[in-house]
Amino acid sequence: MIDFQHILTSINEAASNEKDKGKIADYIPELAKVNVDNFGIHLIDIQQNNFSAGKSDEKFSIQSISKVLSLSMALGLIGEKVWKRVDVEPSGDPFNHLSLLELENGIPRNPLINPGAIVIADILVSKLEHPKEEFLSYVQNIANDDTIAYDLGVAKSEKRTGFRNFAAANLLKSYGNLNNDVDIVLDFYFHQCSLAMNCVQLTNTFFMFMNNGKCRRNNTLLTISQVKRINAIMLTCGFYDEAGEFAFEVGLPGKSGVGGGIVAFLPNKFCVATWSPGLNPKGNSKLGMLALEKLTTETELSIF
Amino acid sequence: MIDFQHILTSINEAASNEKDKGKIADYIPELAKVNVDNFGIHLIDIQQNNFSAGKSDEKFSIQSISKVLSLSMALGLIGEKVWKRVDVEPSGDPFNHLSLLELENGIPRNPLINPGAIVIADILVSKLEHPKEEFLSYVQNIANDDTIAYDLGVAKSEKRTGFRNFAAANLLKSYGNLNNDVDIVLDFYFHQCSLAMNCVQLTNTFFMFMNNGKCRRNNTLLTISQVKRINAIMLTCGFYDEAGEFAFEVGLPGKSGVGGGIVAFLPNKFCVATWSPGLNPKGNSKLGMLALEKLTTETELSIF
Amino acid sequence: MIDFQHILTSINEAASNEKDKGKIADYIPELAKVNVDNFGIHLIDIQQNNFSAGKSDEKFSIQSISKVLSLSMALGLIGEKVWKRVDVEPSGDPFNHLSLLELENGIPRNPLINPGAIVIADILVSKLEHPKEEFLSYVQNIANDDTIAYDLGVAKSEKRTGFRNFAAANLLKSYGNLNNDVDIVLDFYFHQCSLAMNCVQLTNTFFMFMNNGKCRRNNTLLTISQVKRINAIMLTCGFYDEAGEFAFEVGLPGKSGVGGGIVAFLPNKFCVATWSPGLNPKGNSKLGMLALEKLTTETELSIF
Amino acid sequence: MIDFQHILTSINEAASNEKDKGKIADYIPELAKVNVDNFGIHLIDIQQNNFSAGKSDEKFSIQSISKVLSLSMALGLIGEKVWKRVDVEPSGDPFNHLSLLELENGIPRNPLINPGAIVIADILVSKLEHPKEEFLSYVQNIANDDTIAYDLGVAKSEKRTGFRNFAAANLLKSYGNLNNDVDIVLDFYFHQCSLAMNCVQLTNTFFMFMNNGKCRRNNTLLTISQVKRINAIMLTCGFYDEAGEFAFEVGLPGKSGVGGGIVAFLPNKFCVATWSPGLNPKGNSKLGMLALEKLTTETELSIF
Repeated sequence: MIDFQHILTSINEAASNEKDKGKIADYIPELAKVNVDNFGIHLIDIQQNNFSAGKSDEKFSIQSISKVLSLSMALGLIGEKVWKRVDVEPSGDPFNHLSLLELENGIPRNPLINPGAIVIADILVSKLEHPKEEFLSYVQNIANDDTIAYDLGVAKSEKRTGFRNFAAANLLKSYGNLNNDVDIVLDFYFHQCSLAMNCVQLTNTFFMFMNNGKCRRNNTLLTISQVKRINAIMLTCGFYDEAGEFAFEVGLPGKSGVGGGIVAFLPNKFCVATWSPGLNPKGNSKLGMLALEKLTTETELSIF
Repeated sequence: MIDFQHILTSINEAASNEKDKGKIADYIPELAKVNVDNFGIHLIDIQQNNFSAGKSDEKFSIQSISKVLSLSMALGLIGEKVWKRVDVEPSGDPFNHLSLLELENGIPRNPLINPGAIVIADILVSKLEHPKEEFLSYVQNIANDDTIAYDLGVAKSEKRTGFRNFAAANLLKSYGNLNNDVDIVLDFYFHQCSLAMNCVQLTNTFFMFMNNGKCRRNNTLLTISQVKRINAIMLTCGFYDEAGEFAFEVGLPGKSGVGGGIVAFLPNKFCVATWSPGLNPKGNSKLGMLALEKLTTETELSIF
Repeated sequence: MIDFQHILTSINEAASNEKDKGKIADYIPELAKVNVDNFGIHLIDIQQNNFSAGKSDEKFSIQSISKVLSLSMALGLIGEKVWKRVDVEPSGDPFNHLSLLELENGIPRNPLINPGAIVIADILVSKLEHPKEEFLSYVQNIANDDTIAYDLGVAKSEKRTGFRNFAAANLLKSYGNLNNDVDIVLDFYFHQCSLAMNCVQLTNTFFMFMNNGKCRRNNTLLTISQVKRINAIMLTCGFYDEAGEFAFEVGLPGKSGVGGGIVAFLPNKFCVATWSPGLNPKGNSKLGMLALEKLTTETELSIF
Repeated sequence: MIDFQHILTSINEAASNEKDKGKIADYIPELAKVNVDNFGIHLIDIQQNNFSAGKSDEKFSIQSISKVLSLSMALGLIGEKVWKRVDVEPSGDPFNHLSLLELENGIPRNPLINPGAIVIADILVSKLEHPKEEFLSYVQNIANDDTIAYDLGVAKSEKRTGFRNFAAANLLKSYGNLNNDVDIVLDFYFHQCSLAMNCVQLTNTFFMFMNNGKCRRNNTLLTISQVKRINAIMLTCGFYDEAGEFAFEVGLPGKSGVGGGIVAFLPNKFCVATWSPGLNPKGNSKLGMLALEKLTTETELSIF
């Protein structure tokens, strides 16, 4: 039997001793205010035992991690038709100046890069009467937690400065792969990305993906097949241009966000979330990546 | 002595006999209404003798041809500082899906592609109190013709559908190479592109570039060195991805627009404008390109 | 308990009823001679029970599947130093005309694309006294099967026509990431790719990767950590530009070759190999991909 | 009347006072042996008056300048059929790591980049019985100078180290746009590039392009139309990624080589050659570019 608490405690210590904690994302002004020293980790196993270390109950902006949840909701709403508008291939593009164009003929490479997630947002805006409210309820329902909320300051901040996302949305529109107005879709998208959670809430939410689609209260929102496919996408596309490296070093499906959060899990075993706002050059939480490497090295648990 | 009138008449006949007149641009709905059979040509020589054939006095939307005029005005206003924000290299990019990104680190390849012209528009918006009015006056002054005007229907039409330009402007903004609001810059840009002229007015306007910077009334707006440089840019960058082909087949500096207009000139000799709305696959007027090839073949005049 | 034999038999039937069996690779003339109707499948489980259907004992050229074996040998020889010369990111490049350049500053994106495998070949040529002989022995040892051999006709055929590989090798050389002569490295590489196996031999060989590095006779050649990493690379990079799709649809690590072979496995459970020479447009065996989809759908087994 | 001698003398003085003389190309070992301080310039006008300054009679490797001469010979041999195998668009590619692939479906962007010149070499190898001898005679005939010769040391040096050219040739071969063996075509190509000339010989050779196709002795090898087209290609493609900049700053057609030579001309007026082996970051002779800028600024002569 693995002593998760012991491992988490030692990971937290190692994190606090690390000199170089990475660089906080500053392109969203609101995110730049966070203290780089923060580190938290939380793990929930399949039996719903909980283990924590560090600031596991401090909230942060989950940012791109929300893309898994919007994809999940879109799949529930329109099923496999999602894949007519977005592909499932890793982006693999190391060249920043091309990254906006991870579309071929208007089809984004996958739903976890920005242009792909904007297409998913467009689907939700089309299908939902009150997109922002209904998406939030959806997430609260998965997590069984009504306190989860948008951070309106972050949403507003990104709306003012997210020119690259405006560029991507307009490009999608020019290809006919955006049915609603750019402003409406991005208003939803920026709210979605502003979701604030702590590590505990994050594991409560992603418990579903680790547990064949069943939430903690045993309710289900996706078929087993849909869950497996979302998990596959997380493994191959969840960590920007570092997806291969993460699969290679850690061997778990998961997703990171520029707010410094990472969530990852071993199907049928455990789900873990880390938070540390300093990023490595590829845009993933520096201490979070190290923590997950350490966790899988010490437990020798991976999907491979 | 060359009999220009004879040559123009025979070009006009050849054009009307041509079966395949190209395809009208339909991405700006307002432009799609024009009849594909139209053809006009006008030539003015250095002594201000005029020669015409076909519908040389029918107005059309000059579109990208206006980029030469906004560049000219920007150079007059801030001089060589223009080149800190836009480069002078041919775009050379044959791949449509990359064409938005003809920027390196936010610097567009040249001022005659859309992202480059949007940067020039941003310069004018910054420097002018009433950008649209002052730019129009500038063009009227060059041409010595107060009847030149914007086509507000075209400007409005492009504003509603120009998602690719919104994408480019937002991308420039994300790189910090756009000082004003995207909407304000593009409002100016769409007006600029909507300028309506006929072939006669076009040659009257570009007479200045053929004549070392002196307009028909002998007033000057640019230094000789600035004129020569704009002319060089027209030769290397004036015809989208067909710039090399045009220099190769025709050997004159010039500029084309998706409205079907082309203007070209031999320095110190003549300036010629053609109009025919059907485009070839590279986006240049099909009959216009053939007309200019024929003109330089028959006259054996070229800069080479 | 899963009835593998029943599933394999039904897969074989479905395959023989399929009208469109894909297109045989014709760029290596020797490969073009095979009959497109061939289909075989073999599965070995962790207890070494064996199940077969179709032409599971007919040999074919394993081609790119060999890249996993050369990578494995190189890792055994020089360990983690391999990763200084090749990266581990999915290639993700959908544009054929760029695919040669899946190198950044001479570092190929991963060891399972051609330029990456050529670097691995260079490592083996440097480290082995008799590279071709020793690599063959290595593979025979893993499979516990002395009858595995190169197909010299295929090796020769590719040597005469593999201009794209000569281009890649020379490009690597120009970046200083090839220590030996291009001709010597490619001679080894073409032999490596020409390895002929049937489905049974393929599962016997890859049993090691399914079984934490232990071969069927319990001998070990790699550390557990090395095995997990190779498995991660197979999942993210094993199926050309279809790697994401394969993870999404099948959910197993594996590797395909243009000879029409595919091998895939679920760690600690089973290893399966299919062969059918007709390829889909992405370059993977058409019937093989369908077979593996069917296998994981019916068994509901995947790493996710 | 312009005092060319005065201008050349002052250019030579300015060159010798320049501190930063650029960086000598070192990828061809033989070229790296030259002294960076060398500078020479020679000008011949249409009346065949000659003006010199600096080391105008010292020989150097003309390298890429030879591409204009091989193109010229190929055009003479097979005429416009050349354009089925190579395009005439500027390369415009600022990204080094892509530059090898300035081919679309095997058609190089223009005949003055390496892949394009290799296709031209292939044409000559197909059409000539003794390619190296006949090409040399062709050049000697244009220049009316039997002393022009290959530098066999340079040819040999590049053969040993020109991996990037081997890559390009193999890639062309894979697309079916190379009819002869890679080794044979490149042996010719490396000899062609190794042609050694001094500035006087270079102007004597390119006199033909300045003079509507007539060599100094009045013999002709090309039609006027062919000459104009080659001149257009030199203007748009003659200076690597700096072609636009050169047209913009200098306004003359011309060609540069990594040996530090540049030749340029104003049709019907003069032809000038400079040599200085230090290159700027774009790969053109640093002092040569400055010299030509100064020449056209002081004479106010340009094609625009």
